[in-house]
Amino acid sequence: MEQIAITREDRKPTATDLGLLKAKQQAMTVLSQRSRFAAAEFTTVEDFFLRSSYGEARGAEGACDFTFGNPHEMPLAGLVDALARNLQPQNPDWFAYKISEPEPRAFIAESLSRELALNFEPEDIALTQGAFAAIALAFRLVLDAGDEVIIPVPGWFCYAPMLRAADLVPVKVGLSEPDFDLDLEAIAAAITPNTRMVVVNSPHNPTGRVYSRAQLQALANLLDAASDRIGARIWLLSDEPYRRLRFDNVPFVSPAELYPWTLIDYSYGKVLLAPGQRLGYLAISPLLPIEQRQELQSATFSVQMSMGWTFPNAIMQYSVAALETVSIDLEALAAKRDRMLHSLEQWGYKMVHPEGTFYLWGEAPGGDAVRFAETLAVQSVFVMPGTLFERPRHFRISLTASAEMIERALPVFRDAAK
Amino acid sequence: MEQIAITREDRKPTATDLGLLKAKQQAMTVLSQRSRFAAAEFTTVEDFFLRSSYGEARGAEGACDFTFGNPHEMPLAGLVDALARNLQPQNPDWFAYKISEPEPRAFIAESLSRELALNFEPEDIALTQGAFAAIALAFRLVLDAGDEVIIPVPGWFCYAPMLRAADLVPVKVGLSEPDFDLDLEAIAAAITPNTRMVVVNSPHNPTGRVYSRAQLQALANLLDAASDRIGARIWLLSDEPYRRLRFDNVPFVSPAELYPWTLIDYSYGKVLLAPGQRLGYLAISPLLPIEQRQELQSATFSVQMSMGWTFPNAIMQYSVAALETVSIDLEALAAKRDRMLHSLEQWGYKMVHPEGTFYLWGEAPGGDAVRFAETLAVQSVFVMPGTLFERPRHFRISLTASAEMIERALPVFRDAAK
Repeated sequence: MEQIAITREDRKPTATDLGLLKAKQQAMTVLSQRSRFAAAEFTTVEDFFLRSSYGEARGAEGACDFTFGNPHEMPLAGLVDALARNLQPQNPDWFAYKISEPEPRAFIAESLSRELALNFEPEDIALTQGAFAAIALAFRLVLDAGDEVIIPVPGWFCYAPMLRAADLVPVKVGLSEPDFDLDLEAIAAAITPNTRMVVVNSPHNPTGRVYSRAQLQALANLLDAASDRIGARIWLLSDEPYRRLRFDNVPFVSPAELYPWTLIDYSYGKVLLAPGQRLGYLAISPLLPIEQRQELQSATFSVQMSMGWTFPNAIMQYSVAALETVSIDLEALAAKRDRMLHSLEQWGYKMVHPEGTFYLWGEAPGGDAVRFAETLAVQSVFVMPGTLFERPRHFRISLTASAEMIERALPVFRDAAK
Repeated sequence: MEQIAITREDRKPTATDLGLLKAKQQAMTVLSQRSRFAAAEFTTVEDFFLRSSYGEARGAEGACDFTFGNPHEMPLAGLVDALARNLQPQNPDWFAYKISEPEPRAFIAESLSRELALNFEPEDIALTQGAFAAIALAFRLVLDAGDEVIIPVPGWFCYAPMLRAADLVPVKVGLSEPDFDLDLEAIAAAITPNTRMVVVNSPHNPTGRVYSRAQLQALANLLDAASDRIGARIWLLSDEPYRRLRFDNVPFVSPAELYPWTLIDYSYGKVLLAPGQRLGYLAISPLLPIEQRQELQSATFSVQMSMGWTFPNAIMQYSVAALETVSIDLEALAAKRDRMLHSLEQWGYKMVHPEGTFYLWGEAPGGDAVRFAETLAVQSVFVMPGTLFERPRHFRISLTASAEMIERALPVFRDAAK
């Protein structure tokens, strides 16, 4: 895959993509177009997961797995305790249909209000099966088929297929390099009369960047002016699953504080490192004009029902309060980051210094991430090539790997640097 | 709401509905059109749930709740045991990302093969967060925006909003009355060049009818001929969550056996009476032509991911085998059915004799179900008026009410019959 240009041209996905997609779907006859498009957008990830050296050997004894953000140590005791306690039925309704239940909803509204210094009402919080479901909800709640959505590159590889499945058009806009800040000029250039949303992900996967208040304020100003210009409101989706995973007291600013037309999605799957037990939410910015805020509040229930009853399971809802203080060890995470950064940089790797998330992002020695990943894979060390992020010269490391995996892998990284 | 005509006119939802929907959305400014349409289709249900006597008083001491299919007795011990056992982590992956995991997938494929006498492969089974998510998957996997889907009236009140949220067009076709069999002539008349799916629900909510092999074979023949005629394949979605809840040894036939282009959705939420812990699946008919079958098999993962990671939680997946033999007590359910049917009929109620599900369906004394429901509600007895099923002369009773609720409510039903 070639490095794509970070220009206005980027926002013509239809022409480019349709050619690509058409080639991939010639043999396909029964799938819907939106399913074919979603599957095609996910091809690189699926090929890596199923049909690469990683796909073949990731389960092997002694494998050092730095790929997906999956746990490689036993689950947190606080999580297991909370689930075990809340599984014991206390009334006949224990496992009845659950929606956004009043108790966890109120708890989250209060906790989030403290965290972001905004006044969330319980009705601003739509409880979901993880951030995936919250993002899917945002894409349907305020967007219609054909709307364009600006997403960052490099960025999470599920935005584009999720947009395609919702009949939306992903418009991929590059971050500024080499610092990976928001590129406001590129965003401005990508806005068209059909633009209806911009996705902001901070702390950012895969680079670990946390955007400053000044950057986000400039973006808010840009979106306000652009909305006026095109005569339609451009929403901001603030994808914040790594919000609590930050280093060195770097401050976090949510765009919801600066731009009223912001929806926040959050996942407990990162801080608990338990993505197999889905829990998250979509939150409406309390700064949204009151009529619009109430309109969204009143619609989340029926839209979530209509999307496939995307509310969290009963046990997860009962556990919300108990899980508030459960987290992976941030000091241990910072120590892993430092250990790897120091080692890799000492061997000549060019790495971004992450301010948050549990990822490291850097340039692959030799400039070909796929070849680099394959070289490591021979030694049972697995990293994610930047091709999954449309940046084929870079690679991503997930620090959810165990400390022991890191020690075993470091000599392999050292040898690969030569 | 008027009783709708069961004619060809029914399949012009656009004109009728748009008028209705337009009126409801005048004040709405920021919701997407698909969200507004989904919410509007759900208005009657939401009003009943939130803004009726039921909405106000359902939680009161001594309430006899015959409305939604929710539990009113303590959860099944077998369910609680399975969850408690499978919650204890056995390895670091215990709560890692879960997709359609190999073990439960193979288990279900084998179990379903025995149950339906068809040869399902594990890859035919897409594990989902309940039947809701399986239906949502079916609607997106093979259907595109604007496609028409035939749904039964009376029928489950979530089909239409779910279709609207997926940019699809619900075409409501009446069942034959008073027996509530499939009305093949009405279905044939409703098919247009845009028809792409027919939803069949057996055992049927709310009537409890189980369709015969002969009826389903006739439907299969009809759909085959119609697909040829319109030059596009019409899919069949067999919504089977009540498949195991049948009385008097009534045989069950899945359309998947008779029509290769059938997708089956199933939920554990009925048989376990635990809809708050989501577990279900979408199954592809093994009779589907092999290329098409493989195409669907290969796409379910990326489509489910793109829809919002709609795979069941880890604990539910680990519990699949243990839950195979856990069920509400079918004899007790049959006894409740008989107790209520005998009593109601003795007082003059005209009831359908259900062959399956946990519902009773009959005509409201006086012919106005809303007034009837309000009369009962004064005595803290809550039934579901047929308006939620677009049949305002009928009402539904859920036999998930406890035996004690039934005994307390019977005199109220008796008085209301006069």
